[in-house]
Amino acid sequence: MAGRTDNLRIDGGRLWASIHDTAAFGPGRAGGVNRLTLSPADGEVRDWFRAACEGAGLSVGTDALGTQFALRPGRNAAAKPVAFGSHLDTQPTGGRFDGILGTLAGLEVMRSLNDAGIETEAPLLLVNWTNEEGSRFAPAMMASAAYAGAYTVENILSRRDANGVSVAEALAAIGCAGGEPVGAREIGAFVELHIEQGPILEAEGKTIGVVEGGQGIAWFDGTVTGFESHAGTTPMTRRRDALLGFAEIALEAERIALAHGPSAVATVGEAVIEAPSRNVVPGALRFTLDMRDPHSATLDAFEAEFREALAAIAARRSLTVELTRIWRKEPVPFDPAIVSAVEASAGMLGFSHRRMVSGAGHDACNVALRAPAGMIFVPCRDGVSHNEAEWAEEHDCTAGANVLLHTVLALAGRVP
Amino acid sequence: MAGRTDNLRIDGGRLWASIHDTAAFGPGRAGGVNRLTLSPADGEVRDWFRAACEGAGLSVGTDALGTQFALRPGRNAAAKPVAFGSHLDTQPTGGRFDGILGTLAGLEVMRSLNDAGIETEAPLLLVNWTNEEGSRFAPAMMASAAYAGAYTVENILSRRDANGVSVAEALAAIGCAGGEPVGAREIGAFVELHIEQGPILEAEGKTIGVVEGGQGIAWFDGTVTGFESHAGTTPMTRRRDALLGFAEIALEAERIALAHGPSAVATVGEAVIEAPSRNVVPGALRFTLDMRDPHSATLDAFEAEFREALAAIAARRSLTVELTRIWRKEPVPFDPAIVSAVEASAGMLGFSHRRMVSGAGHDACNVALRAPAGMIFVPCRDGVSHNEAEWAEEHDCTAGANVLLHTVLALAGRVP
Repeated sequence: MAGRTDNLRIDGGRLWASIHDTAAFGPGRAGGVNRLTLSPADGEVRDWFRAACEGAGLSVGTDALGTQFALRPGRNAAAKPVAFGSHLDTQPTGGRFDGILGTLAGLEVMRSLNDAGIETEAPLLLVNWTNEEGSRFAPAMMASAAYAGAYTVENILSRRDANGVSVAEALAAIGCAGGEPVGAREIGAFVELHIEQGPILEAEGKTIGVVEGGQGIAWFDGTVTGFESHAGTTPMTRRRDALLGFAEIALEAERIALAHGPSAVATVGEAVIEAPSRNVVPGALRFTLDMRDPHSATLDAFEAEFREALAAIAARRSLTVELTRIWRKEPVPFDPAIVSAVEASAGMLGFSHRRMVSGAGHDACNVALRAPAGMIFVPCRDGVSHNEAEWAEEHDCTAGANVLLHTVLALAGRVP
Repeated sequence: MAGRTDNLRIDGGRLWASIHDTAAFGPGRAGGVNRLTLSPADGEVRDWFRAACEGAGLSVGTDALGTQFALRPGRNAAAKPVAFGSHLDTQPTGGRFDGILGTLAGLEVMRSLNDAGIETEAPLLLVNWTNEEGSRFAPAMMASAAYAGAYTVENILSRRDANGVSVAEALAAIGCAGGEPVGAREIGAFVELHIEQGPILEAEGKTIGVVEGGQGIAWFDGTVTGFESHAGTTPMTRRRDALLGFAEIALEAERIALAHGPSAVATVGEAVIEAPSRNVVPGALRFTLDMRDPHSATLDAFEAEFREALAAIAARRSLTVELTRIWRKEPVPFDPAIVSAVEASAGMLGFSHRRMVSGAGHDACNVALRAPAGMIFVPCRDGVSHNEAEWAEEHDCTAGANVLLHTVLALAGRVP
């Protein structure tokens, strides 16, 4: 039996227009967006966002880190709001969809409910988180982390960019520091719509990713030390070649990740030979490894097996191999009720969908430390993101926004 | 039956003293030598060398590229001289032996023959070649190359260092351009004593390397192109990781070289990821390959097998791999009679010895293009060279100089 709002749909054309209209705030050079957090362009889009929210009848507040909250009252003012949104800052050569889709789809949900005259039981709260990207200030997702209590506000306000400008100074410069204490807004649920930033949905021809959680991440720094020697005078059997040891290490990382597949991934993203020369056998090399999986136990197993492989390579090639884990973030499972609500909405709307984990970090992963959270993914072309070539199709954006609408309605409850 | 000069020996202490005395011209910071070609320090050691040669009764001439020739007359003035020597320039952080041993051992041979009152049939000619190292001006070994006709003198004189100073200007600055036309000196044979600059003699406990020739060398530049993607969102099976393709390529180079062992060597000395980032799957990488072997056919076979391996890796990993051969130098075989004379001298003197090829380039390899040539190697500690830590033991230097003495006597013929 269809519910009373099952036929409700957002206005895909209005959403699409808002995505491309706001791309004018910090235009990129190649069709994307260059809107670093707390830059003048970010100030402009924030002003636009506030005005648009107020135009939709929402009451907008801003916290001390600049995060914007736009409230639509519910029948039950005592109920914790159902929150949704994402971020409007971008990478310096970012796209038009990363963060923007989730924020503006949230605005579109508010507008569509207004148009249909629908009241919800719980209030609805649209959020634009400050500095999700981390390109200008570290850490990434700092505002949602502070919201969840992972950092103090003072700590975050004192972070500085490459020019020595602090977060506090940058907020003041564009007039975007608000009066609300960080973390003061209680929320009952948080749902974030986002492009996948990966190739899976596109490759499988699926429209909606029902996100079960964020992957755990372990970062490692490694060094391989052998003996630098003459490329012409040193027989192959007398070499202690750091590069060849590293080559085996990189392939072992791949082998072990595949053995823990399909979810585990391992990436050697950086490898630098010390004092490289065309006719010198490399004596030392340093590398990085990024390893992710939705399960803590797999992170543990990968590390143990990788260290075992490294020891064998070092022994066989008479090399010294050192590996240091410099960071580990445990997996973040999303709230089962929200995951089910997303899945049910996608099914009700007739969209092909699959459960998946988020390979990237998102504000929803931070919010999940404090409140029930979930995410909705839509495909993006070739899985490309953090690139001006980033692209999502209009029908997929519309689909994602409709899943967001119905998930929010399911969580907030329509007034009968 | 022992020959009449079989008991003749050079003065090892005098040779050792000259090696360490001349290290004062351009002292390094860590016990080695910093004496770039045609620098003021090189001018000082050239003046010392001329004075020492004249002190030994030799007549010293200099050619237009600064190469010094010190002649000891023989009984037969019409015979082509038996030449020997090496170079006195060093790397910026060079050692006390590379080139210096061969030049000063030649001086010691002249002094010892004087001391013993021995006249030879053919004249003897001691040579100090300009710019063997190539650290300041390219190409390395430029004077011996011009001597052999591989470059015109004008070409070499116009080469400039990193400060824009030409060879002609540098020669004038230290007053070392001579009046002799380059290549005017006819020689009947050339013998160069040198430290091995590799680990073989030391590892095998051998005193003398009987050098059969210089290896052929092929240099390649390669690129691997895949697709840059997100380290967290791209499943292992959907990656086109340029680094992992490269890792297999480097290991294939090793495998193929070992299959052509023990003489073939292959070295990946440089590998640079384009736009490296810890959490990005590498999309492109460039690398170098240095491949050497004493036989042209092995250079050919290596390249063919390597290209086949690259094509297989590219196909399996959906990568584009390009390989360009940027340089190839054919192997230089030394004169069999000179090789035999070196071997016979080492044997007569009771030194353990083995035949080997030179992995590095030497002036003798250039001279061999024009006249019969050969080389004598002695061990150096850990095979280290081009480093201030370069070291050879006094007894090995003495041994090498005695082999040089008796090789020269065998080639020049003692007057009965």
